[in-house]
Amino acid sequence: MRNMCLLLSYDGTDFHGWQFQPNLRTAEGTLKDALARILGERPKLYAAARTDQGVHAKTQVVNFATERGIPVEGLIRGLNSLLPADIRVLRGGEVPSEFHARYSAKSKTYRYFILTSPLNSPFLRRYTLHVPQGLHVEGMERAIQAIVGVHDFSAFTKKSTSYRNPVRRVLSAKVKGRGEIIVMEIRAEGFLRYMVRNIVGTLLLVGKGKIDEEGFKAILESRDRDMAGPTAPPHGLFLWDIEYEPSLLFPPYRLGV
Amino acid sequence: MRNMCLLLSYDGTDFHGWQFQPNLRTAEGTLKDALARILGERPKLYAAARTDQGVHAKTQVVNFATERGIPVEGLIRGLNSLLPADIRVLRGGEVPSEFHARYSAKSKTYRYFILTSPLNSPFLRRYTLHVPQGLHVEGMERAIQAIVGVHDFSAFTKKSTSYRNPVRRVLSAKVKGRGEIIVMEIRAEGFLRYMVRNIVGTLLLVGKGKIDEEGFKAILESRDRDMAGPTAPPHGLFLWDIEYEPSLLFPPYRLGV
Repeated sequence: MRNMCLLLSYDGTDFHGWQFQPNLRTAEGTLKDALARILGERPKLYAAARTDQGVHAKTQVVNFATERGIPVEGLIRGLNSLLPADIRVLRGGEVPSEFHARYSAKSKTYRYFILTSPLNSPFLRRYTLHVPQGLHVEGMERAIQAIVGVHDFSAFTKKSTSYRNPVRRVLSAKVKGRGEIIVMEIRAEGFLRYMVRNIVGTLLLVGKGKIDEEGFKAILESRDRDMAGPTAPPHGLFLWDIEYEPSLLFPPYRLGV
Repeated sequence: MRNMCLLLSYDGTDFHGWQFQPNLRTAEGTLKDALARILGERPKLYAAARTDQGVHAKTQVVNFATERGIPVEGLIRGLNSLLPADIRVLRGGEVPSEFHARYSAKSKTYRYFILTSPLNSPFLRRYTLHVPQGLHVEGMERAIQAIVGVHDFSAFTKKSTSYRNPVRRVLSAKVKGRGEIIVMEIRAEGFLRYMVRNIVGTLLLVGKGKIDEEGFKAILESRDRDMAGPTAPPHGLFLWDIEYEPSLLFPPYRLGV
């Protein structure tokens, strides 16, 4: 069996998330349909992350096992000719048998984009959350530092979800203002469900002056979802990057087209 | 009667162009419906330019006459609450009675965006033409200079259209590469139908090395539409800006929200 890896990019607007669901347009289902037409089989796909409905992926990584000996370049070309324009296969290659898109990932990076202009933009509306007021970016930048390191993120998970282990290690967290656009970036070894969107929703309270840096930290430490702000909507969120041990992906297993 | 002016922005993807057509979703029809709900009348609209199906407007300017004394800020707020997210009213104000969005315009600027990455981007696909190859930007930049000044643009108009006067004055023309994105900008006192898209389609022949700078100039001078390249698709094109005499738009008739 060959273990094949693909790097994808998709616009989440018109997908019901990554994960396959019968009779719904999902990114996984769409990719599987295209793979099935080329390979003549429907391989089980392992993805680095399951993006929720409406969340975008600048980078998503999947792997699957196949007996088919189709050359990688032809596979990628064929997939892109079959796939709709809102999902593209950027790169691909054979990877070592032990590679697993999710379990081999050392870290994942998400970015969340906010547009603070008085009016929403017809051109950015699919990819940014519109917050029609100035936000206190420096306060948000200071507050977000509280999440760096190893923490119990129960305060920022999906309300009805219970995790055996709600502790995750966040490697870096940034808030940057670029004119009317604010970008938040969180890199972590792992994430709880809705974690980024709940952190963003709570940081927005800081940006609007409703809570301060200490208040944000207290919410994290409370481990109580009811203390945190609302879940930010999905359309500002991008699965941005996924990091692996170079030895798993690079020469002799270099991805590339 | 008050002469009212509005500045709009719209994503042309899901509109059948600017101009009203019965039973089709047009930008003009959509704006008129919203105005009718607020004003209780359907005013005749005068627009700076009629964008074709699929063409975007970063800036479109319209004016209309009304007896209604509704304050501008309320009008804009009301319109944006009624309008769909792909069209926004950015600014507005009362203008002198002699102001006409089209006839008072001193010049109009269009931009055309091309993405030259090997694969199309799920996020830029609605707003750029994807040309999956390197283009000779310097050659295009030199070639486009031929259109600056007063010329008969018959070679670059819509084939079946005949103009009493196909002569237009182009004030400036630029081609700029920014990484994988190439931007072409043409500012002119007036444009023929499909003029920008036909110039772009022909410049692409230069960029691909199929014709040279002299060849481009010869096409312009031929005044023969059959000599020019194909019409570039609409989704890379933006009506970008419209210039007026400041006295017509600014204090005491300043647009603003």
